[in-house]
Amino acid sequence: MPIEKWKTLSSEYLIRRPWLTARRDVVQLPNGEINEEYYVLEYPTWVNVIAIDTEGQFIMVEQYRHGLDGIFVELVAGVAEEGETPLEAARRELLEEAGYGNGHWELLSVISQNPATSNNLTYCFLATGVERVAEKQHLDRTEDIAVRHLSRRQLLDLLESDGMKQALMAAPLWKYFSKH
Amino acid sequence: MPIEKWKTLSSEYLIRRPWLTARRDVVQLPNGEINEEYYVLEYPTWVNVIAIDTEGQFIMVEQYRHGLDGIFVELVAGVAEEGETPLEAARRELLEEAGYGNGHWELLSVISQNPATSNNLTYCFLATGVERVAEKQHLDRTEDIAVRHLSRRQLLDLLESDGMKQALMAAPLWKYFSKH
Repeated sequence: MPIEKWKTLSSEYLIRRPWLTARRDVVQLPNGEINEEYYVLEYPTWVNVIAIDTEGQFIMVEQYRHGLDGIFVELVAGVAEEGETPLEAARRELLEEAGYGNGHWELLSVISQNPATSNNLTYCFLATGVERVAEKQHLDRTEDIAVRHLSRRQLLDLLESDGMKQALMAAPLWKYFSKH
Repeated sequence: MPIEKWKTLSSEYLIRRPWLTARRDVVQLPNGEINEEYYVLEYPTWVNVIAIDTEGQFIMVEQYRHGLDGIFVELVAGVAEEGETPLEAARRELLEEAGYGNGHWELLSVISQNPATSNNLTYCFLATGVERVAEKQHLDRTEDIAVRHLSRRQLLDLLESDGMKQALMAAPLWKYFSKH
């Protein structure tokens, strides 16, 4: 039996703020059933980057994450701003959060936080041979981020122990290590 | 410079429905800065399962995903109900969505959709040697799910081509294939 798309009968915004936009759709399934309450979270395009410097160290960031109420080492990541390509956004984030630039960039993976509930995609880049190009970070008022340098072994240990909690970062990292 | 946790100054629910619970926190950073609008999405524990039958086929499900407005082949997945352990929930979901049971189960990974914005974890299980134990699926009124059997090569192709969009499934699958 082939799977078919749902039909959206109506749509209403519950909240539209820069960091949270939630929509409630009334949807009809192919079998005719109606779901009166299907919530979709709308987000801009997200980006992250596996950045490796000229000495083979992985450029990571450590920060507090309020959802899980913990401090985590993660990939540099962020949101593509209006008019920015995903690559431009990833380069800007690496510069702002870590002070690194240059190097060779390629798109590694395009995945989703949650295809059921979120409407955006995350572009994961691989940047090799990056160099320190700025003395200081350029952080937003509400960002508190420390740069961390991990060896290949340290990053693999983090992945294998589930220390890399963020699935949108763990997936491209596993993909990278499957080939390198 | 060590990274410290934020302090929550106040907290208010914007919406509390079975499929969407959103909270707005006023938080204070270690540097004293206040963020008046930090949104957290509260969810129950989620589960998914890499299920492999006695002939080495991967038991997958295909369904429409409204957030991305597309039809995807995914792992069996769901939500742990009140009083259920993650393992019980994963076994129940495999039975309900695909009609499979038995086999050897182990926890493969515990990761997060988004440690910044979501408060829950996803438990990813590996179930080997599962068998068809029910003639029919037991789906909710608003579920429309087809069972698909993929070979190891087909699933690897899906992963490598980013056809497996859901990061919470791609990450444990890559982890599995890193060792098998």
